[in-house]
Amino acid sequence: MTDNILIERPEAHPGVTVIRMNRLDKKNAITRDMYGQMALALAEADADDAIRAVVLSGGPGCFSSGNDLADFIQIAAAEGEAKNVIAFLHELARFTKPLLSAVDGIAIGVGVTMHMHCDLTFASTRTVFKTPFTDLAVVPEAGSSLLGPCIMGYQRAFAMLAMGRASPRRRPAKPV
Amino acid sequence: MTDNILIERPEAHPGVTVIRMNRLDKKNAITRDMYGQMALALAEADADDAIRAVVLSGGPGCFSSGNDLADFIQIAAAEGEAKNVIAFLHELARFTKPLLSAVDGIAIGVGVTMHMHCDLTFASTRTVFKTPFTDLAVVPEAGSSLLGPCIMGYQRAFAMLAMGRASPRRRPAKPV
Amino acid sequence: MTDNILIERPEAHPGVTVIRMNRLDKKNAITRDMYGQMALALAEADADDAIRAVVLSGGPGCFSSGNDLADFIQIAAAEGEAKNVIAFLHELARFTKPLLSAVDGIAIGVGVTMHMHCDLTFASTRTVFKTPFTDLAVVPEAGSSLLGPCIMGYQRAFAMLAMGRASPRRRPAKPV
Repeated sequence: MTDNILIERPEAHPGVTVIRMNRLDKKNAITRDMYGQMALALAEADADDAIRAVVLSGGPGCFSSGNDLADFIQIAAAEGEAKNVIAFLHELARFTKPLLSAVDGIAIGVGVTMHMHCDLTFASTRTVFKTPFTDLAVVPEAGSSLLGPCIMGYQRAFAMLAMGRASPRRRPAKPV
Repeated sequence: MTDNILIERPEAHPGVTVIRMNRLDKKNAITRDMYGQMALALAEADADDAIRAVVLSGGPGCFSSGNDLADFIQIAAAEGEAKNVIAFLHELARFTKPLLSAVDGIAIGVGVTMHMHCDLTFASTRTVFKTPFTDLAVVPEAGSSLLGPCIMGYQRAFAMLAMGRASPRRRPAKPV
Repeated sequence: MTDNILIERPEAHPGVTVIRMNRLDKKNAITRDMYGQMALALAEADADDAIRAVVLSGGPGCFSSGNDLADFIQIAAAEGEAKNVIAFLHELARFTKPLLSAVDGIAIGVGVTMHMHCDLTFASTRTVFKTPFTDLAVVPEAGSSLLGPCIMGYQRAFAMLAMGRASPRRRPAKPV
């Protein structure tokens, strides 16, 4: 157990659980251990009558850079290693209470697609959502090829999920 | 029969029926009697070959504040009392001609959800749509939990129908 | 065989086929012959492993004014005359590779609806999309009554496909 995932119960908002990714030195890249902790926190919040809503969050300037790639390779290499990822995705999909997310800054890969399972997402104006699935030669994950077109229409979902276009689209910085 | 519902056939637009709510002293709160008259007007317009389109409308500054709550309690209290409401909703859903709506100002509850059955809604810039279902501890009505996500996407529909957020969102007025 | 349809393989973009309508003296009105050539080009691009994406395009200021009406009358008049149109629509619907379109200026009728089959459409700011189906007393074509609501929501699709409203809506020019 690490403190890479913080489970918070804000005093000012009884009934709310905040699941906060807290591995900022790695831009909140998500490991199997973190997936497992988030899955458990969701399951517990769903079962706890005192909890009425859950907020997924990250840190200032960084929601999540997505899967930890070193960890991801081990997931791909051995059977059974994906179980925490699958548990998290199942909890996202079957969560029965209002699920919100709060995003500031970097949101990559699963740091984008998990919001498609949320009832509402609040993003700061400096947030950039990007899913470089094609660059990594992987398919869109976490039900995003189903949910993306429902949320933003087929064409915009194609631009994001298949072409890897950032949203909002940022122009390359001008060379000095 | 009251004049709370006006059925208009504008001379300049032959072929158009305007169904206008006209109970402005009660902010166009809708009673069983008014539901019944609107249901009948829709059925007649649909059956009349001279009518090519119907417009649902209210008054200046007020489309409708939704169900008349005193009336609504009686509907809830006795079997059979909902028949006019149900008749109106059925007519909305099965109406076969272009159905439009014109909205200015207050639009609350069913004053919002009836537009989801319209082919087009024209709203003035000072219109505020709001569905306080959660505040009233009732579920979203009139097929809005199905139609809302189709029209505005799941997340915005959740904000409106489940959280009761006004659209467009108004900031609370500053205290003096 | 005419040069009304140009099949281009841009040197700077190997793997891309551009199908360009090039009948600018008739505002790229599409004839049976042109439908047939475009259907063939799509089928060949889909079967050619060297081709990775196709772009549908027109000329400067004019994507397409839609069906050539003289030709369209002949299609309606005789059995079998629609076969090239149908072949084109089938190729659009079953095309398996990324299909893009580039639009500048006039886009009318099927010059609008073919984009609904594309994964992405890039349109210049001076493009106007318009489908005057009701004016011509024809029904929305090319699957647009299904795809339109998926892309832009039911109400906007109704405004475009049933009411023939241009998008973006242009005000009539002021009389001098």
